[in-house]
Amino acid sequence: MRGAVLYAPGDVRVEERQDPRILAPTDAVIRLSATCVCGSDLWPYRGIVAVDEPSPTGHEYCGIVQEVGRQVTNITPGQFVVGSFFASDNTCPICQAGYQSSCLHREPIGAIGAQAESLRVPLADGTLVATPELPPEDLIPSLLAASDVLGTGWFGAVAAEVGPGRTVAVVGDGAVGLLAVLAARRLGAERIIAMSRHEPRQQLAVEFGATEIVTERGDAGAARIKELTGGLGAHSVIEAVGTQESMLQAIRSTRPGGHIGYVGVAHGVELPGRELFFSHVHLHGGPAPVRRFLPELIDLIWNRQIDPGKVFDLTLPLDQAAEGYQAMDERRAIKTLLRP
Amino acid sequence: MRGAVLYAPGDVRVEERQDPRILAPTDAVIRLSATCVCGSDLWPYRGIVAVDEPSPTGHEYCGIVQEVGRQVTNITPGQFVVGSFFASDNTCPICQAGYQSSCLHREPIGAIGAQAESLRVPLADGTLVATPELPPEDLIPSLLAASDVLGTGWFGAVAAEVGPGRTVAVVGDGAVGLLAVLAARRLGAERIIAMSRHEPRQQLAVEFGATEIVTERGDAGAARIKELTGGLGAHSVIEAVGTQESMLQAIRSTRPGGHIGYVGVAHGVELPGRELFFSHVHLHGGPAPVRRFLPELIDLIWNRQIDPGKVFDLTLPLDQAAEGYQAMDERRAIKTLLRP
Repeated sequence: MRGAVLYAPGDVRVEERQDPRILAPTDAVIRLSATCVCGSDLWPYRGIVAVDEPSPTGHEYCGIVQEVGRQVTNITPGQFVVGSFFASDNTCPICQAGYQSSCLHREPIGAIGAQAESLRVPLADGTLVATPELPPEDLIPSLLAASDVLGTGWFGAVAAEVGPGRTVAVVGDGAVGLLAVLAARRLGAERIIAMSRHEPRQQLAVEFGATEIVTERGDAGAARIKELTGGLGAHSVIEAVGTQESMLQAIRSTRPGGHIGYVGVAHGVELPGRELFFSHVHLHGGPAPVRRFLPELIDLIWNRQIDPGKVFDLTLPLDQAAEGYQAMDERRAIKTLLRP
Repeated sequence: MRGAVLYAPGDVRVEERQDPRILAPTDAVIRLSATCVCGSDLWPYRGIVAVDEPSPTGHEYCGIVQEVGRQVTNITPGQFVVGSFFASDNTCPICQAGYQSSCLHREPIGAIGAQAESLRVPLADGTLVATPELPPEDLIPSLLAASDVLGTGWFGAVAAEVGPGRTVAVVGDGAVGLLAVLAARRLGAERIIAMSRHEPRQQLAVEFGATEIVTERGDAGAARIKELTGGLGAHSVIEAVGTQESMLQAIRSTRPGGHIGYVGVAHGVELPGRELFFSHVHLHGGPAPVRRFLPELIDLIWNRQIDPGKVFDLTLPLDQAAEGYQAMDERRAIKTLLRP
């Protein structure tokens, strides 16, 4: 089959890779209907995370089950399924507490490589969620979004304790930040302040439910949030970038007693303990346990109550993955969908 | 009046200071029945926090109201009152949300100096809580403990979401850590693991409700907590030290999805963003909003349901404050009560 491989920073190639097959009796193999490029794929693409050897890439996926191992009972061939970027058994105490992305038996899909025609999914019973029936074509981008960016933005909003009556600020206008806006709207936030200086992204933020836009960033951005909230700061701040600047911006935008949900994968972040202590914020985040939210998110998409697929503003054949990466790296695209 | 003044690291003197008087119409002046030395007083005493000029010391207090400003309506002369280490109006939006120690108008009592015969308390209506009547002598140590260490340990337990069915680990065996054990017991924790290598403190921890003692610290301590919790880590960890080692010990002792309540004033702490991200913990803490808990804590003490005053294992006349500091610095005493 064809699949993307990252050879070195800036060097993504789509080439022949071995066809996936069942390795463990709990595996499934699915033929991908769509896959995509994630903001987190850009870290190694940009050389910020080391690339030691040619590595299969991609961890977002949805498609049709081809084959299942003999211990798989919840999922059957022919079903359309969505899974998340960590395979999880969904039965261990950590999964049962809702933290499937820290499952005791988790396996990262990124190491298997979902930017491909087909994919082996470990722990299929715990990992995959089937749609009620085969989806119409136009729902596929949204179902694909549920695989990571929607679930991640949703977790950010839940971790930030978004709810009715709350003022929410979102740091980051990538796909995750934009879908955190959508999540905040669905979770009933009163005010949603999107922090973005890019007009097309601002527009999408408003479409997803943002009530205000702040273009300043860093300390100026935090000062603007304070100004908009009577000097107090937002109740809930969702951090969807993962840099030192964005984390400090989030902390400084939150009122004492408020909540930060941080879902940008941290790179080079060192949190100053004393400032955090006196900020009085709640901090929670990490790799989103997307599996926790998948049934609900699939349901919302299936019933056309949300349309997260709008974050895909570039669709390319899988063979043009390199261009898909480049467009996101240069911020010409918010998110690239790849058609195998 | 007599009051303690810190001149330089290791140099605390009790000397004549100006009698406190009403400066603002919201002030009260109280004659102190008891005051004490806090673990956080040891930071400047040890030279870890700079001492620029001779400074009045102490921020824990209870006593009898002598005089109130003309805008004070809740508190009247003759009442026995307890207050916390930040004066707070208890009416601003931050106070109303339960974060009185971040009150928009807060004033640190430490800057006024409570290790003295009398004390001016700003924002008396918001800050002070009166006992039902004048307390019997034997309740005074416990009421004094409510002023800071009990309330701080209690906040640590609440921030760590302690509750029935949860396994709790407490990092730090100072007065705050020990009273966090007491709080965890009152809040219904199933298992309470006190981390301590000092026998008298272990005994008090057990008396307060600890079910297990772990003597290892740092990564060995975290490994032991994992071992005691089926490899998962504790649900709730209370951090009551404030160093880099103790914060990492807390993070590494907590299961994914678990909660850390950190109340040790952070000194030289830099939290590694990536580790925190993948730890999946909830982090909340800061200067304890003791005022939130004071009515409940006073009630528990008044009805002799808890006896937090046991943390005072050394009682000295105020004039011997220097010895009180030294005994705590050398860990000969857990906590020193000073009698003005």
